[in-house]
Amino acid sequence: MSILNHVPALGDIQTAHDLIAPYVHRTPVLTSSSIDALAGCSIYFKCENFQKIGAFKMRGAAHAMALLDAAARGRGLATHSSGNHAQAVARAAQLAGVPAYIVMPRNAPAIKRAATAGYGATIIESGNTIAERESKLEEVVAAYGATFIHPYNDYAVIAGQATASKELHEEVPDLEIVVAPVGGGGLLSGTALYTHYARPSVAVIGAEPARVDDAFRAFKSGRIEQNERIDTIADGLRTTLGTRTLPLIRAHVREIMTVEESEIVAAMRLIWERMKIIVEPSCAVPLAAILRHRDAFEGRKVGVILTGGNVDLGALPFAM
Amino acid sequence: MSILNHVPALGDIQTAHDLIAPYVHRTPVLTSSSIDALAGCSIYFKCENFQKIGAFKMRGAAHAMALLDAAARGRGLATHSSGNHAQAVARAAQLAGVPAYIVMPRNAPAIKRAATAGYGATIIESGNTIAERESKLEEVVAAYGATFIHPYNDYAVIAGQATASKELHEEVPDLEIVVAPVGGGGLLSGTALYTHYARPSVAVIGAEPARVDDAFRAFKSGRIEQNERIDTIADGLRTTLGTRTLPLIRAHVREIMTVEESEIVAAMRLIWERMKIIVEPSCAVPLAAILRHRDAFEGRKVGVILTGGNVDLGALPFAM
Repeated sequence: MSILNHVPALGDIQTAHDLIAPYVHRTPVLTSSSIDALAGCSIYFKCENFQKIGAFKMRGAAHAMALLDAAARGRGLATHSSGNHAQAVARAAQLAGVPAYIVMPRNAPAIKRAATAGYGATIIESGNTIAERESKLEEVVAAYGATFIHPYNDYAVIAGQATASKELHEEVPDLEIVVAPVGGGGLLSGTALYTHYARPSVAVIGAEPARVDDAFRAFKSGRIEQNERIDTIADGLRTTLGTRTLPLIRAHVREIMTVEESEIVAAMRLIWERMKIIVEPSCAVPLAAILRHRDAFEGRKVGVILTGGNVDLGALPFAM
Repeated sequence: MSILNHVPALGDIQTAHDLIAPYVHRTPVLTSSSIDALAGCSIYFKCENFQKIGAFKMRGAAHAMALLDAAARGRGLATHSSGNHAQAVARAAQLAGVPAYIVMPRNAPAIKRAATAGYGATIIESGNTIAERESKLEEVVAAYGATFIHPYNDYAVIAGQATASKELHEEVPDLEIVVAPVGGGGLLSGTALYTHYARPSVAVIGAEPARVDDAFRAFKSGRIEQNERIDTIADGLRTTLGTRTLPLIRAHVREIMTVEESEIVAAMRLIWERMKIIVEPSCAVPLAAILRHRDAFEGRKVGVILTGGNVDLGALPFAM
């Protein structure tokens, strides 16, 4: 079930952008001459790490919330997540003055639970398996009449995430390539869809950790693929594609590139050191792909969506 | 000896701003509603961490370089430093296409040496004491005819640093207080001088680590004071005031506030976590002062100069 029951049209994304304006920042696009020199191309970084709750996920959650009628909204929003989506749903509900019910597994880090509770959400504990989380979520939805907002497999969420690339194309109208990371595919499918409508000559590329390369494989096979291991440092990209994101990605994405863990850490460090901004490991995956697959980007104008900046400063990967 | 032989007038700072325009970024002013809520005032952060070489020091070095005649400039720039000033002088010389000679003590970290050499400077090793560094610098100046650019006790440098507050006042014309950190006093004296000329009703406050509170004491005594220990995490603020910065600070600064080491780390962490930007410990000293001396800032519009973002990511103070 989605609040939006069809593949978002260009007009849906434009409407999404208007609807979420009160709830999100229009984030800046930054450049770095020293990273450009290293990469051999001109990179325009769309800084969703400066977005509310520190990640682009705010866009999709705000859009799903904004599409609800007043009665449904009043009953509240619900999801199961321990990541940025949980905070996004909590914050969207808080801004609208309605309840949020967030199902979190018992093993979720205390810091994530506190951040989400800090936005006024009710945290509901579940078992750690996906089945336990989903069954607890169903209980919550039934008990409160709250609306479930899926983190990515939802057309309202996809249209919301698409607004990041809309702003990027508006800011830099002559991009030749756009690179976004891919986990569940909400951001990548939205980016590809908007770019297809508004800038059809621009190539959209997905970037994924090699350890969780389900999107790379699904892009070829046409089926949703599983990951045998999920121990990538890019913790926002551990999920697999969904039934709504996979077809959009296959239709509108040029290629999925994979990168190694060490390349992700090196690219993350480069962004921190050269740009003086804090990005999550997941954010660094596109730059890692650009540096690894240098020939594909040589001399081009490349847009990169920096997805978020929520890291645990007490556990950084830089110690040497 | 200074390239500018009088206390900078308003016109000198305006000229400085024009002269350095090709060599520096006009950095953004950022705000954070969550930090404002914690501090109980409205803070406008002038982000010199995004400046070239990652610190405001670029302004003073570029101005000193720009004031030299072609012949003197051609003989090169010289300084002794292992911090941001070394990189600033090296980069200013590189942009002007002239040599830079940087005297660094033998015990300077390899990473600082490499960064400075990366801007094309010749690194000249000296003993570790101030006397050894100064004597080596004299040799270099004599041998090459290079011009010594002092890190702070120089009116050209002070006028250059003043341009950061000029931009801040232009961006936010109704500030009530400006807070800058104080080490040697180049930034604080420039900030106070420009504010005195252009916005005389605005109070300028210096912020200093309690462990190196020479400016706090000198502000009262009227004499240059020494520090018995220099082991503050705010490594940019270990130096004492100079003969040119002290009188300007006494004339135009309202107050010097001191803060503890733990308050510096907490304020730094707050900026990293809430604003997703990387700042040096020295930068966090003004926010630490605002949070500690809350009553002095309550409800006010406060400008803060974030001085730089050059940190060693392999040795951060956040591990828990």
